Formats: sequence, structure tokens, C-alpha cells
Amino acid sequence: MARRSTTSGPLGIIAGGGLLPCVVADAAAARGLALHIVGISGEASHAIERHPHTWVKWGEVGKLFAALDKHGCRDLVIIGTVTRPDLAHVKLDFGAIKNLPFLVSLGMGGDDHVLSSIVRFLEGKGYRVHGADDVAPELLAADGVLGKHAPSADDRADIALGFEVVQALGALDVGQTAVVAKGYVVAVEAAEGTDAMLERCAELRRTGRTRGRGLTGVLVKAPKPGQEERVDLPTIGPETVRRAADARLAGVAVAAGQVLMVEHAATIEAADRRGLFLLGERLTLKPKG
Amino acid sequence: MARRSTTSGPLGIIAGGGLLPCVVADAAAARGLALHIVGISGEASHAIERHPHTWVKWGEVGKLFAALDKHGCRDLVIIGTVTRPDLAHVKLDFGAIKNLPFLVSLGMGGDDHVLSSIVRFLEGKGYRVHGADDVAPELLAADGVLGKHAPSADDRADIALGFEVVQALGALDVGQTAVVAKGYVVAVEAAEGTDAMLERCAELRRTGRTRGRGLTGVLVKAPKPGQEERVDLPTIGPETVRRAADARLAGVAVAAGQVLMVEHAATIEAADRRGLFLLGERLTLKPKG
Repeated sequence: MARRSTTSGPLGIIAGGGLLPCVVADAAAARGLALHIVGISGEASHAIERHPHTWVKWGEVGKLFAALDKHGCRDLVIIGTVTRPDLAHVKLDFGAIKNLPFLVSLGMGGDDHVLSSIVRFLEGKGYRVHGADDVAPELLAADGVLGKHAPSADDRADIALGFEVVQALGALDVGQTAVVAKGYVVAVEAAEGTDAMLERCAELRRTGRTRGRGLTGVLVKAPKPGQEERVDLPTIGPETVRRAADARLAGVAVAAGQVLMVEHAATIEAADRRGLFLLGERLTLKPKG
Repeated sequence: MARRSTTSGPLGIIAGGGLLPCVVADAAAARGLALHIVGISGEASHAIERHPHTWVKWGEVGKLFAALDKHGCRDLVIIGTVTRPDLAHVKLDFGAIKNLPFLVSLGMGGDDHVLSSIVRFLEGKGYRVHGADDVAPELLAADGVLGKHAPSADDRADIALGFEVVQALGALDVGQTAVVAKGYVVAVEAAEGTDAMLERCAELRRTGRTRGRGLTGVLVKAPKPGQEERVDLPTIGPETVRRAADARLAGVAVAAGQVLMVEHAATIEAADRRGLFLLGERLTLKPKG
């Protein structure tokens, strides 16, 4: 995996949902890179239209390649959230039909299987796939206490258990995220996503299924061991902090240098205001099991 | 751990919530055992009152021991669901105060830590703690296809991954239950419980976050490796099957001989009627890591 490679030619950004595609495009543009965004209809935000762009629907694989080729993009960043399309309702263009066996193979397996298959597929076509952090390394969470609040010794123990859980599950291509309070694993993320998991923690706290005085427990987020980091870096932002605060957690700990902090300043500000710590921890990742 | 020990004297049943305490009491009574149920107020069902019983509140440790001693119960079964009591709102009787350091130690750690601490505490007082399956082995899920539907080859692959996930997490004292569909781990249970996890799966399916035609995916349930099985055997029943069907899963797989099937016939009947398979699989459990 070529990390921190430099991109000189025009950058192609294949954009799913969320803020991240625009944040990365803005960072690339600020760096003087030419770029073209290919937005996936129904997934990407219309905010991508502030940059040169093309819209493609799921299944328009031919149109995707045509757009990239027309704008001379051999260097790609694939970024943003996607729902899993139901292949039965996707209209395939000729470019898709040519690549049908590959597309069918995507129907099986965990997220990481799908993403690394896509990366290999694009590399097989001669594209270079980069991580968002190659283009905008300033988006990665730094090491250490990032806001004005620091974790307690109890929080540190919960953080350690949380990273253990995430790594054990990551080896099975499951989650990136867990919530631990007082040595008790409250929630583990799978398909529902971090926001839904934090809502569940808030609900468990409200209904007394989990307890504690004041802010208790930590949200832990790290990439899966062996995760295809170029296309699926875990991400936090102010909304993550807000939801962690609603679940009355004491703070958020992420793998330093391996988790994107979209809206860096706003994320720290949200943690400071709600009294949560925000910690970047340098992890030694175990190799994928 | 003394399993399958025979109980000759009066059996004390410390009862939390759910059907299970009564099912076990009925089975013990049918076997001709004398018994006394100590029901935890706010947790146990009033249905326990059809057997000789005493109610105790959280914190009435002295009253608990007095009831057991009065009825000559040295053999205990601890069974049923409990919420984690908030120690700040529990009134302690003298028996509790004498055992305060033990009770405080329960406030930290995962479920299994708490349960095995309670078992050791009771054994330290000279009680013998039995599993519900010692008293009523007929409640355990049998080996093989239990209803009229059988898992497909795809289902078998999902079942294998599900057991892997549950065992990896169990080593960290997390969950007993996961849902896997087409090689993709959809949900992992932690504090929310199986019912809430299945509701989430149904919601993910309804909103298109997870997809598939017809009944797809499996619910897998097994004890944690090294779990204190005498007090925390995983359990399924007709309600589990109903919720799995609502989540449009293809079936339910449990560790044979290690998972209780409350309402055995009704559980199989529910699976048959909704078109789900129900499988008991003989597992080789890895030792606790």
C-alpha cells in the first residue's frame, strides 16, 4: 500500500456522502492540485458542485471511467459514506457490464472485503488510489490530549479495553468503534454506524440499563487491523462529540494518525464545551489475524 | 465448576426477571424436589408466587440468607434477568453491610466478572451453586436441525463466522450474540440485549442499510468462553424467533447443550411457522483468552 505518495497530476475524487469529500477537495485545491469530483447520485452532497464534477449513478461504471479519463485523473481518492446498493435495482451501463463478474463478487463479504476489492480493481485498470490523508494529512487526529479535558485513570482503563475490543473485532472485519464504561463493554458497532450506536448508549443510560454518575465511559475508534485505510479511514467530527455527550460519556479516544477529524477545530471546541476529553492514542496495531 | 451435580436437599432459587425462574422451579418441582424461591423485588415475576417464596429487595442480603437458611436451602440456582442496580439508591440491610466490600467490588467490570464474583461469594458462605441445566437438563438446546427447516450452505458460512465473532468477543466478556448475513456482520450484542439487537437488525433491513432477498442472515448465540454458565446461560425462546423473523433472518443457530430453550416446543413451532431454521451446533469452545 503506497501511503503518503505525492499526487502531481489532476486528482480524481470519487465522492460518497458526508462532509468529507468536500473537505478533502478543498484541502487539495488549497494545495494547488487540479481535481475533478465524481459524485455518486443519492450519496454525495450537492456541495461537491463547488468543484469541477460529474454525477454518476450506481451502475454507471463506464461513465465513471469516462469522466476520470476526460479530466486526466490517474490519481484517485475514494471518500465518503455509501449505502450498500441493491444490485437488483441498479441499472448497469456498458462499462459496468464489461466488469460484471467483479461487481457480482462485491455482493458477498464485509466492508473491508468490498473496499479492498474496489481498490484492487481500480489499480488493475492503472489508477493509483490514495488515502484522503495523503492529500490532506492535516485531517488526521494528532497524538495526545487534544482539547482542554484529560481522561482519568478509570477512563484510561476503559480506553485500553475499548481498543482491545475494536482490534479483536476488526480482525473479523466487523467494527471500528466501541463504548466502554467502568470496564463494561456497553456497545459495539457493526452495520448500524457510530451515530446509531451512540444513540443506543444514550437510550441505555436514560432507561437505567447502564448507570454512572456524571460523565462516564468512553467512545473508542480505530481502524480495523489490515483495514483498507485508503478508502475507509474511520472519522469523527463535532456530531460524534455531540452524540457522545448526549450519551453522557466522559470522552472520545481515537487511534492517533489513523482517524480523520473532519472539522478539526469545531470537534475540539465541541468536546471542550461539553466537558469531554478528546484523546489521540498512538496504537501498535496487531497484524490482521 | 461442579456441573450436573445432583441436588437432594431443598433447592433455593434466587429469581430475577423473565419466565426462566418459574420454568426451572416447575421442572424441579416435577422432579419431586423441595424448593424455595427468593424473588428479587422489581425483577422477578409475580408468577413465582405459585411456589413457596420470599421477596427481597436489592440490598437485603441479610434477609436473603435468612430465607435460605430458614428453608434449609444449601443448594442454589441463580436464574433470570436483572438490571444493574444503582448502589446509590439501594438500602442495605445489616447482612449487606457486613458484606459491603464484596458488594462494592461488584460495581466494576463486565457481566461475567459480576456473576462469577457472586458465585464465589456464595460458595465462600458454604452454598453449592448449580446451573439451571443441572436441575432441568431438558431445557438445553439439542444438537442438529431442531425444526423442519434446515440452513443452506450460505447460512452455514454465516453461522461459522457468527460463532467466531461471539467467541472473539466473549474472550473480552462482551456478548453472546451476533447477526451475520452473507459474510457481513450486521450486529453485535453488548449491553442492549438480544431483543434490542434484533430490533436494530429489523430497522436496518427496513431502511435498506442491509439488504437481501427473502430471509437472509442468521442469529448466532453461544456462551462466552469461560462464562459462568451456572448463572448466565444464554437463552432463546419463541420471542427470539419472532424477532429474528421480523428482521427477515433465515434462522437461529445456538451452541448445542449450552443455550437454554425456554418453552422448547413453542420455540420450534414459531421457527417452523415463520420459515426459519433452528439449529443446535456442537461447539468446541476455545479456552478463555
